[in-house]
Amino acid sequence: MATTEKTLADLFLENLKDTYSAEKQIVRALSKMTKAAASRELAQAFETHRGETETQIERLEQVFEMMGKAARTKTCQAMQGLIEEANEVAQEFKGSGALDAALVAAAQEVEHYEIARYGSLKSWAQELGMDDAVKLLDQTLEEEKKTDKLLTKFAEKQANREAA
Amino acid sequence: MATTEKTLADLFLENLKDTYSAEKQIVRALSKMTKAAASRELAQAFETHRGETETQIERLEQVFEMMGKAARTKTCQAMQGLIEEANEVAQEFKGSGALDAALVAAAQEVEHYEIARYGSLKSWAQELGMDDAVKLLDQTLEEEKKTDKLLTKFAEKQANREAA
Repeated sequence: MATTEKTLADLFLENLKDTYSAEKQIVRALSKMTKAAASRELAQAFETHRGETETQIERLEQVFEMMGKAARTKTCQAMQGLIEEANEVAQEFKGSGALDAALVAAAQEVEHYEIARYGSLKSWAQELGMDDAVKLLDQTLEEEKKTDKLLTKFAEKQANREAA
Repeated sequence: MATTEKTLADLFLENLKDTYSAEKQIVRALSKMTKAAASRELAQAFETHRGETETQIERLEQVFEMMGKAARTKTCQAMQGLIEEANEVAQEFKGSGALDAALVAAAQEVEHYEIARYGSLKSWAQELGMDDAVKLLDQTLEEEKKTDKLLTKFAEKQANREAA
């Protein structure tokens, strides 16, 4: 079927650049969301995840290095859309009891994007025999899943009740 | 904290409209992805999920009805970004052995967006005491999770291997 020379390594690199862009966008978005959050607990959760995201960016830089490539971003349009929506909803529900529920939902959409993305990257790294990259990508994947679960717990125990 | 009258019911309705827009976009995108897929098995999976998505749209219409509201879309920007990226990658890897791996990854990002979204909608419907809506939203949530798992299996067994 192959009529061009594009390979799985190309697909991996393209997605790595796109993910690098997504994570950099997320760091900025989390700073805004920390300020926007109504409850201190949610602000703290966003702040903690911003720190984790900075580590995740460093891991991506290590993977670029393993490939002998310069760390470059390729604008992640999906993340732009996700963050635009988060900003809109934050604006719309500002000052209301439903604000934190709205922010948590937006953050979980971002987390799920990353869960899908790191799942693919990890699976491709396995196929390409890049064992050290697999380890790094898996660390991030597990952090994203953990953050998503934390947000679900916060929503069910607090944010959604306060909003209701 | 509440200084405006926005409530959880408003948040639920806003997200319902946004999800209604997302699902309509997905139906069109899946038609394109079915045509783009290199393998018959992947084309079949996309086609099956397009059928499921039509049912999911009907379920959303039922939820609007339960709320006594007209079914209206509010353009889902996040889904626009996700689909734009899927189109770009389909174009870039067209004719290459990595095409299906690329399409599967893009589709899983869409699935994960929906998993996050229906998770929030279901949780809010529970909080609002809308038991019939909870059932409908949960049916869709389980379908999205099942589709995501199917795609992971297809990627690991076939698409990524062919691409490597």
